[in-house]
Amino acid sequence: MHWIQQHVTLEAKPRGFHLVTGEVMRQVPDLERIQTGIVHLFIQHTSAALTLNENASPAVRGDFERHFNEMVPENQPYYEHTLEGPDDMPAHIKASLLGNHLSIPIADGELAFGTWQGIYLCEHRNHAKPRTLVVTAYGERA
Amino acid sequence: MHWIQQHVTLEAKPRGFHLVTGEVMRQVPDLERIQTGIVHLFIQHTSAALTLNENASPAVRGDFERHFNEMVPENQPYYEHTLEGPDDMPAHIKASLLGNHLSIPIADGELAFGTWQGIYLCEHRNHAKPRTLVVTAYGERA
Amino acid sequence: MHWIQQHVTLEAKPRGFHLVTGEVMRQVPDLERIQTGIVHLFIQHTSAALTLNENASPAVRGDFERHFNEMVPENQPYYEHTLEGPDDMPAHIKASLLGNHLSIPIADGELAFGTWQGIYLCEHRNHAKPRTLVVTAYGERA
Repeated sequence: MHWIQQHVTLEAKPRGFHLVTGEVMRQVPDLERIQTGIVHLFIQHTSAALTLNENASPAVRGDFERHFNEMVPENQPYYEHTLEGPDDMPAHIKASLLGNHLSIPIADGELAFGTWQGIYLCEHRNHAKPRTLVVTAYGERA
Repeated sequence: MHWIQQHVTLEAKPRGFHLVTGEVMRQVPDLERIQTGIVHLFIQHTSAALTLNENASPAVRGDFERHFNEMVPENQPYYEHTLEGPDDMPAHIKASLLGNHLSIPIADGELAFGTWQGIYLCEHRNHAKPRTLVVTAYGERA
Repeated sequence: MHWIQQHVTLEAKPRGFHLVTGEVMRQVPDLERIQTGIVHLFIQHTSAALTLNENASPAVRGDFERHFNEMVPENQPYYEHTLEGPDDMPAHIKASLLGNHLSIPIADGELAFGTWQGIYLCEHRNHAKPRTLVVTAYGERA
């Protein structure tokens, strides 16, 4: 049984949905030491999220941003938590809808992704800082 | 420590929410070798999802389909990713709202479900193919 | 490799979003035996959910409740599963949107939370009973 745990920092990004598979994975080179296992990605924030979705068309990421802005609009009359700006409360709700952690199987030393899957950082704040992930991987040694 | 990992194929289903606990679990007979652990189900697609919900009333699954079609409608004017048909972009969004993986505790060699819990395959495409899961289970040997 | 698994009961709560980090964690004192690992929280119900979000402002939790009631309204004409009351079908949908399990990294014997993260019990029924979690933690011994 082998355990890897480390922090990974993602550069600050504009509000929107961003494909970050490469940015995450190249910071975790030791993952190849695990033959069969799980990699767990956990974002230590409450206004950004992680999800898996289509890794090819940038229009998909744009449509996600536009749809989430319809489904969780700013400036709803019933929002009471408005001190940190109109993007803050929607950011919290979007983050919980999408989720703050992913767990992905490792098979034969690699992420067991389907052909079209990639990791999205979902950045819901207008002026975001870098985001920190805790990456924990565990499994049988390669 | 014992690890099991295998692919499971679910037969092609109509668009909608389907109870698949039996179809999944009977393909993973070795799960009984684990006394205490976790089973992780990961769908290798971006337009279908997995969730846990009520395992009794078919009306619940119908209501899920109808409500998700209201919450994530087709043909929104702001969708740009429309090449693969009107059901495609909503399918991606629904998949990320519901999530592409489940992890379920194993206790005394069985899924530690509550009385009313079952596994749903959430099929969001009109003309879907079979769907592939990677099932990874790990824990202490029975 | 060390495994902990136990049930945790959360007292019955009013409909709404509740910060329960303390109520959960003080029932799992053995967690400190794990140096590096994962704690997995699984709610054995289909009309309540778990999520992570902002641990400071009660207004955030109120805004969650108000927004979810807009996004998943009661008494939609297309609901067929209405036997158990107008809050029942929305409760199922909200539960699947938020998710029924969390997994959180353990680092240096503690939950690797960001500064603002806390565990929410999302109670979607008007007259709820106590809720049961299965808590499974695993990792390297401290």
